[in-house]
Amino acid sequence: MQPAQRPGGRTARVRTAVHEAVLDLLREDKWDDLSIAVVAERSGVHQATIYRRWGTLNALVDDVVVERLSQGSPVPDTGTLRGDLEAYALQVAEDVAGPLGSLYLRAAMIGSRGPEGETFLIERGVQLQNMLDRAAGRGERPPTLLELMEVVIAPLYYHAMFFNRPAGPDHARTLVDRLLSLNPQIRP
Amino acid sequence: MQPAQRPGGRTARVRTAVHEAVLDLLREDKWDDLSIAVVAERSGVHQATIYRRWGTLNALVDDVVVERLSQGSPVPDTGTLRGDLEAYALQVAEDVAGPLGSLYLRAAMIGSRGPEGETFLIERGVQLQNMLDRAAGRGERPPTLLELMEVVIAPLYYHAMFFNRPAGPDHARTLVDRLLSLNPQIRP
Repeated sequence: MQPAQRPGGRTARVRTAVHEAVLDLLREDKWDDLSIAVVAERSGVHQATIYRRWGTLNALVDDVVVERLSQGSPVPDTGTLRGDLEAYALQVAEDVAGPLGSLYLRAAMIGSRGPEGETFLIERGVQLQNMLDRAAGRGERPPTLLELMEVVIAPLYYHAMFFNRPAGPDHARTLVDRLLSLNPQIRP
Repeated sequence: MQPAQRPGGRTARVRTAVHEAVLDLLREDKWDDLSIAVVAERSGVHQATIYRRWGTLNALVDDVVVERLSQGSPVPDTGTLRGDLEAYALQVAEDVAGPLGSLYLRAAMIGSRGPEGETFLIERGVQLQNMLDRAAGRGERPPTLLELMEVVIAPLYYHAMFFNRPAGPDHARTLVDRLLSLNPQIRP
């Protein structure tokens, strides 16, 4: 008989096992057949446990991606709006060029099969909004989160997707220039 | 014995059969397993014929998508730059919201597995460049094709992908306003 585990320890281990299984399956190009049943089999965690904890496959994939983003690509805090935006843009340009890039696209595609209006990566959106709020708190005039997404992030993904040639750092900086020039007053 | 067919007639029928097979397979969510062998089986056209005609799966999918776009969403020619850009943006917003939207995304994902730098939808790019050149020919100052893609098209795809809620016509017009305000002189 195994000694009793602390609930926190077991919970953390279940989370790690399930996350690793999702990442493995996504890396293996199995994302079109991805389901909670498949994740359960791969992770050795019971389906019922996964359903209870995450509810839906979309929520699970979202949790995995947000965790990876938060660890590998934390939202910058450089002290200036331009510094934060450039650091973030360079990070995204690098992420979409690497193995994580197709993983995010896959995760987004899985998410886009869910109900209309279901927002993906909402937790990441909160972190980015905090970054913009910090700039406002310093007296800078940040763009909206929507402007940041549309003017900087969307093109970076678009280049990776449709041109199969991720934008480099210079291009990422150009997109930040464009964002900051939408309204000259927002430039620090 | 069948009467001999004119080569043009046979060529056209082969093209139609192969295109229909690709569209069917993409609609059926079979795109992760899409291959020339699968298309050959579905279309009844010999694999060797498909390889000879299209060369690669990417080139075939590209041909299918460009044909669908050219027929269903011809590049506008309204007589003014703003008119063309708005008509085009509204069309893309509508396309990504409909069944064609996920088809394009799927096709792009398939394309993005090809060699780095392989450009997708190049024929469509030529049509759009012609639209911008017509504006220049009228003495208007059009944006570059890259600016059009980044400022208007990328966000429309991004909304459909990550927010699972395609942008409506008002939003599409706002993106055109943003594009035309990148440089005030380009506004007609």
